[in-house]
Amino acid sequence: MCDQLLQRVKYLEEAVESLNNQLRMNNGCREEDDVNKKTTPETLDGQTESKPGVTISSKKTKKHSKQRPFDFSSHPRRHVALRIAYLGWEYQGFAVQENTDKTVEARLFEALLKTRLIQDRQTSNYQRCGRTDKGVSAFSQVITIDLRSSLFSPGLGVTLPDKTPSGTYPKTGTPAKNSAPAGSELEYLKMLNRVLPQDIRLLDWAPAADGFSARFDCQSRTYRYYFPRGALDVELMAEAAQRFVGTHDFRNVCKMDVGNGVLQFQRTILAVTIRPFEENASGNPEDPQAPNDPYELFIFEIKGLAFLYHQVRCMMALLLLIGQKLESPEIINQLLDVASNPRKPQYSMAVDFPLVLYGCDFPGLAWQGGGAELHCASAALQQQWARSAVETHVYRGMLRGLEAMGAESSKSCWLVEGSRMKNYKPLLERPCCESLEARIDHFVKRGRLERDDGENGGEAVHRGKRSKHVHDSAQPSTTKLN
Amino acid sequence: MCDQLLQRVKYLEEAVESLNNQLRMNNGCREEDDVNKKTTPETLDGQTESKPGVTISSKKTKKHSKQRPFDFSSHPRRHVALRIAYLGWEYQGFAVQENTDKTVEARLFEALLKTRLIQDRQTSNYQRCGRTDKGVSAFSQVITIDLRSSLFSPGLGVTLPDKTPSGTYPKTGTPAKNSAPAGSELEYLKMLNRVLPQDIRLLDWAPAADGFSARFDCQSRTYRYYFPRGALDVELMAEAAQRFVGTHDFRNVCKMDVGNGVLQFQRTILAVTIRPFEENASGNPEDPQAPNDPYELFIFEIKGLAFLYHQVRCMMALLLLIGQKLESPEIINQLLDVASNPRKPQYSMAVDFPLVLYGCDFPGLAWQGGGAELHCASAALQQQWARSAVETHVYRGMLRGLEAMGAESSKSCWLVEGSRMKNYKPLLERPCCESLEARIDHFVKRGRLERDDGENGGEAVHRGKRSKHVHDSAQPSTTKLN
Repeated sequence: MCDQLLQRVKYLEEAVESLNNQLRMNNGCREEDDVNKKTTPETLDGQTESKPGVTISSKKTKKHSKQRPFDFSSHPRRHVALRIAYLGWEYQGFAVQENTDKTVEARLFEALLKTRLIQDRQTSNYQRCGRTDKGVSAFSQVITIDLRSSLFSPGLGVTLPDKTPSGTYPKTGTPAKNSAPAGSELEYLKMLNRVLPQDIRLLDWAPAADGFSARFDCQSRTYRYYFPRGALDVELMAEAAQRFVGTHDFRNVCKMDVGNGVLQFQRTILAVTIRPFEENASGNPEDPQAPNDPYELFIFEIKGLAFLYHQVRCMMALLLLIGQKLESPEIINQLLDVASNPRKPQYSMAVDFPLVLYGCDFPGLAWQGGGAELHCASAALQQQWARSAVETHVYRGMLRGLEAMGAESSKSCWLVEGSRMKNYKPLLERPCCESLEARIDHFVKRGRLERDDGENGGEAVHRGKRSKHVHDSAQPSTTKLN
Repeated sequence: MCDQLLQRVKYLEEAVESLNNQLRMNNGCREEDDVNKKTTPETLDGQTESKPGVTISSKKTKKHSKQRPFDFSSHPRRHVALRIAYLGWEYQGFAVQENTDKTVEARLFEALLKTRLIQDRQTSNYQRCGRTDKGVSAFSQVITIDLRSSLFSPGLGVTLPDKTPSGTYPKTGTPAKNSAPAGSELEYLKMLNRVLPQDIRLLDWAPAADGFSARFDCQSRTYRYYFPRGALDVELMAEAAQRFVGTHDFRNVCKMDVGNGVLQFQRTILAVTIRPFEENASGNPEDPQAPNDPYELFIFEIKGLAFLYHQVRCMMALLLLIGQKLESPEIINQLLDVASNPRKPQYSMAVDFPLVLYGCDFPGLAWQGGGAELHCASAALQQQWARSAVETHVYRGMLRGLEAMGAESSKSCWLVEGSRMKNYKPLLERPCCESLEARIDHFVKRGRLERDDGENGGEAVHRGKRSKHVHDSAQPSTTKLN
């Protein structure tokens, strides 16, 4: 009897373990075990790569996987800029987060570690141009980082390893699988794209001088926000958008992030346009009879030196209200007039999925050119476009059919749920958020900010002892991008 | 010791059961319990409706929910046609299936039962015009069914309840929540759309004479297949497509379903076109310099009396091969020549998501008009279109950026993964599937079909004793649509 029970216990224990494993995999729970067993999802070009034994970051790793020890110190290092494109819809944002693994950076570092291009994040001298939020995509995110190099001779950004006592460079063992022809650099784009998920692609790279920083050396950033005309007065929006150009205090057109040390809200917008996606659109603009097509797509494109947290989405929210004739274009001037309007009225920012960090400008970087990687990225993207475009036209075909049956076109803004028209409350009549001063007070009380008497009797505010991040507040603070 | 083991066994058994339940829920396994607790997902117009206690079909129900007994016999019944639109991408097909609850019909019957418009499926006199497969959508699916009516006077399709001994009609108790003004019919579309998921909409209804059948009285069916130009020779495809028009044996252009009693493959195609989605496309067709835009969308539209299983997708597969110049248009004539080519070469059908059952023609039905329901459906669809269109343009914007960086456009067909160009094997050189005769033999051996000596010495085949479905094979058999 006891023997039978023992057998039964053993059987059930195995069953419980097996079920737990299934549940973990189904829940996508990324424990180290699962990560190490992770298989790269099938890519569109049919390549799969799955190597056990990759750790994400030394911070979280409890188990060390079966990696062959790799002697990074015998390899040259090179400071480089990498240009990255990604579709942000399936991610919780660009920057690594504690409570989720589903970030672009997490995938990036997995790839950098798997390819042994870096030893770990902490020592990789990593800087990013900006952060994009959950649901936001990028065509031109730029990072700078130190990667393993194959160049044993001086080159831009190259740091050579120490020579051996005999005066030569260390041998690096059998050539790595991906080593390029002698004398040329490692094929960074190819190596990384092979192990990255399909919705994250490296498009270009550039050698960079040692002090070059993606964060501080970016000359300008360009965002795009795509939207359909619907019932919007797009011409009015285009006119209103020009009011953003120039240097203004944008505290009423962003989400203030005082807790992270963002204390001044003056930013410079270099250019703004709203234009049709198809420049040579069908329909003759000179024909007054041609009605505006509600299904026409437009781009709101904005170029600035640097942006505040959610700034572009707040700007877009205002433009959409103007386009729906719920606010006049003057509202922009009023909200930029922080003397008259020191506190931000409560309004929602525009949704995330149409936003793309489209360009980051780094003059002086010698981009090497994506070559074959661009063709592959293009081919994969074309298939994704095809699927999306077909679905869009299935919807559109049904809408045409409904129109033929007598359905009327909706008057509300198609990008937001529900209609705002009934019970619309003008922005300037709404309750306001806390003022900047009140927020500073709040953090001063908690010790995260400190007030000093500055020179000339003025007041200065800087990071306090209890601040989460200690850095010189005179530098552009952790500018969170949209 | 044994007591401890017994306790351990009990504990482990409970753990196994609990884990199994979690796995079932995670896997979306729709057992009756889960169905009964199902909450309608948040609809785009903000309405949610969740009533426990709905049973799907009496066949599977073990639990009966807490429904107030409803006396259907005291209500009039009405034979009606309902026109249904749905987006098929999230469903396992239109028709109810044993191993999944995620079908359009399942949702339909839930709604019909929840609104008490029918008592149960078996007694509802239900017929459907056709079946669409997993991933396939419809703008115009039509069903006929007997619904509860509020008309106590004779009307088209109305069956009055038996009168009470006093010679009057039975009282139907307190007016139902949804009862229409006295003397008018129940608001079928409104009642059902309120409880259906957002991706299934009733667009119209018509009273129907008692014998009217969605299945047998359909005069024609029209399908649409949306596709981008890419590198396809669309003009060649349009010319080739005309070869399908007329009455032909389509056994080589479908998936033969002999096991379900489909024994003859002659079908009539009334019309075929391939045309741009935007009829007034930008670009002057008379301008020989204007290059064909690979991102232009086209519609393959086909109208026929009735279709075989997967017929449209097989036709599209052939047209895509022709468009890629991998086959010549003559291949269509060759495959329709079943005397010369009695067996179908192995080839994959086109993917599912671009296909829409766009129209079903029922002359003589007096459609009542969708009214407000059409506006609601249109508004919801516009929001879905907006989201889809924005995503499409995010892809497109990046593709333009890649082109500007020097990427070349892919030459392969964008609707299928991978390139077929290398190692392409012409259809007529490929291995073939079983012939019709061989398949018939196969089922005759198993008793599901029987051969008889027909009149005049010919042979007739009909359903056998062991056939799954017993019906007269002279009738159009269970014609599975695409």
